[in-house]
Amino acid sequence: MQQTRLDTDRIRAARRVIDPVFLGTPLYRCEALEPGLGCAVSIKLETANPVRSFKGRGTEVVASLLAERGPRAVVCASAGNLGQALAWSGRGRGLDVTVVASRFATAAKLDRIRALGAGLELVDGDHELARERAAEIARYDGIRLVEDSLDIETCEGAATIGLELVEALERARPGEKAKPGEQAKQADLAELAETAEQAQTADLADPAPPFDAVLIALGGGAMATGVGHVLKALAPGVEVICVQPLGAPAMTRSWHERRVVTTDSTDTIADGVAGRRPIPAVLDDLLLVADDAVLVQEASIIAGMRMLLDHAGLVVEPSAALGIAAILEDRDRFAGRHVVTIVCGGNVDGDAYRRWVGAAPVPHKA
Amino acid sequence: MQQTRLDTDRIRAARRVIDPVFLGTPLYRCEALEPGLGCAVSIKLETANPVRSFKGRGTEVVASLLAERGPRAVVCASAGNLGQALAWSGRGRGLDVTVVASRFATAAKLDRIRALGAGLELVDGDHELARERAAEIARYDGIRLVEDSLDIETCEGAATIGLELVEALERARPGEKAKPGEQAKQADLAELAETAEQAQTADLADPAPPFDAVLIALGGGAMATGVGHVLKALAPGVEVICVQPLGAPAMTRSWHERRVVTTDSTDTIADGVAGRRPIPAVLDDLLLVADDAVLVQEASIIAGMRMLLDHAGLVVEPSAALGIAAILEDRDRFAGRHVVTIVCGGNVDGDAYRRWVGAAPVPHKA
Repeated sequence: MQQTRLDTDRIRAARRVIDPVFLGTPLYRCEALEPGLGCAVSIKLETANPVRSFKGRGTEVVASLLAERGPRAVVCASAGNLGQALAWSGRGRGLDVTVVASRFATAAKLDRIRALGAGLELVDGDHELARERAAEIARYDGIRLVEDSLDIETCEGAATIGLELVEALERARPGEKAKPGEQAKQADLAELAETAEQAQTADLADPAPPFDAVLIALGGGAMATGVGHVLKALAPGVEVICVQPLGAPAMTRSWHERRVVTTDSTDTIADGVAGRRPIPAVLDDLLLVADDAVLVQEASIIAGMRMLLDHAGLVVEPSAALGIAAILEDRDRFAGRHVVTIVCGGNVDGDAYRRWVGAAPVPHKA
Repeated sequence: MQQTRLDTDRIRAARRVIDPVFLGTPLYRCEALEPGLGCAVSIKLETANPVRSFKGRGTEVVASLLAERGPRAVVCASAGNLGQALAWSGRGRGLDVTVVASRFATAAKLDRIRALGAGLELVDGDHELARERAAEIARYDGIRLVEDSLDIETCEGAATIGLELVEALERARPGEKAKPGEQAKQADLAELAETAEQAQTADLADPAPPFDAVLIALGGGAMATGVGHVLKALAPGVEVICVQPLGAPAMTRSWHERRVVTTDSTDTIADGVAGRRPIPAVLDDLLLVADDAVLVQEASIIAGMRMLLDHAGLVVEPSAALGIAAILEDRDRFAGRHVVTIVCGGNVDGDAYRRWVGAAPVPHKA
């Protein structure tokens, strides 16, 4: 593989400075989703942590370095999840965190940023205007600007998800998989435990083959390039598929045209991935690690959110349903395969969420 | 501590035969819940696994032993979660699993039991009748009866939650906690990683003190006696509080009267804990490890479910909201403390759940 900006050893080191509360997240097959999708589906759940998104992995790396490098003041633009995560990571390290966001951002995210003690400045425009304003503040006040996806630490943090996926893949390899027969010798629990450890019981009871594709929400590109780098480096056989909303297609179009393509506006409920101006260096990395980048409709994102609620019991934000949306729009592509979808965030406004998923339950068997 | 039926070394051994998909579950502070509760609250999340409840921990131990001991046929009575978990654990080990349940049990649970390939027999009565019928089947067919809470493996499996809680407590001990200052030496990520590992970054950014109470849903008693045993053995300073619905108070009344008290009926939406006939041996253990057992109203359980949905983004079954309900009913008791509540299951019927939590969102700031 050609060189991306990422380095696998640095990613391993990054994992060791991240608060464990963000690591080792659940990865489990969700068979209740499968009748509606036509393939085996495993969920990598990034919402069960103090900020309800994967962004804490990256902000822990950023904040750990800033904590002794200084400056102790930092500013970032955010649609809400990065800002919330940086506020959390900065609070514990005595950093002075300022977040710039669009005044149209998800209220629940803005409330959490304030609650975590960060300074919050709202701009009367979209995320790209917030990015400009954050850069201004950094220049004017001489404080550190954290740029999501451009700052390598944000990619390295997200990339630790990839390390966990690869480790699960190694545990699940048929050769290393425990066969019931292998345990048919002792009856004693302690002896059984040793047998089980030698044989690695991971996925013992899971009849699905190891996963062969990972669906990654694509926004600025930190998660896609980070996770993609690790998979291409350590599990090159796994297909890396990025998913973006049709209403915010800049990075996906850029990937297909192999040059930066910007858009004048965005129109999607997936606030976490609604960028208009891809970062050239991030696109270069994405071109090296992504096998495909697809666009999905809003209706599919909503259908994905409803399926995750009704069949997986998960409340997710629109960006976290992009993977399910991609399967819904191209069942033939995934038929009979085992796909991992990274459920990357769960910060939603209650009323908007209820509007999206509706009051009527989706039929129990989709 | 007097001897319970449990043994901490056996529980450690049990952990090593459980599929990792059920272990190392998320434990994280949920500050968004705290304004509504008046104390620091951490969630131990047992719903992000293939059966959406903690029961897999116990059925993995049961099935691992049966897989080489025989008989290969096994039957259990279940309100739905144990049966689903036994079906999952048995499927991977070639066991013939039969589940007996009340025909009034949660449809979503019964559907999953069938989908996992287990035989399902419904009785025209409540869970106690299902227990009788399961015992009959075991006697008549000469197959293994798995009795939740009575069979020590079901308690040992649940007890592994306690090991994880104790390990988190050890990581969070102020003495072992990393201070930002401790990292103020190197700038290099790899060196920083070593410093971080030595210092243990767990809870670095969490200003809350280590937890001092654990709220455990009380039904048959497997989770309460298992987790309680480990806490009393390894972290005796932590208060172990069992929570049961006022509408299904048999075990709680038995604990207070120090003798088995049965009831003629149950009246609660918390199907997972709705027993009427406590098992004497389990009560004996509970008397040794529980500091308190409290009863909560249905309205508090529903309020707890709504808070977990609106402020934690978690879809939980009624039994999993018992801990929050207990805080809501006795704020003074928990004021200023740090409480862990074990969110033990998330299997609900979509329509019933929507009826409980309602269409109208709970105010964003409770």
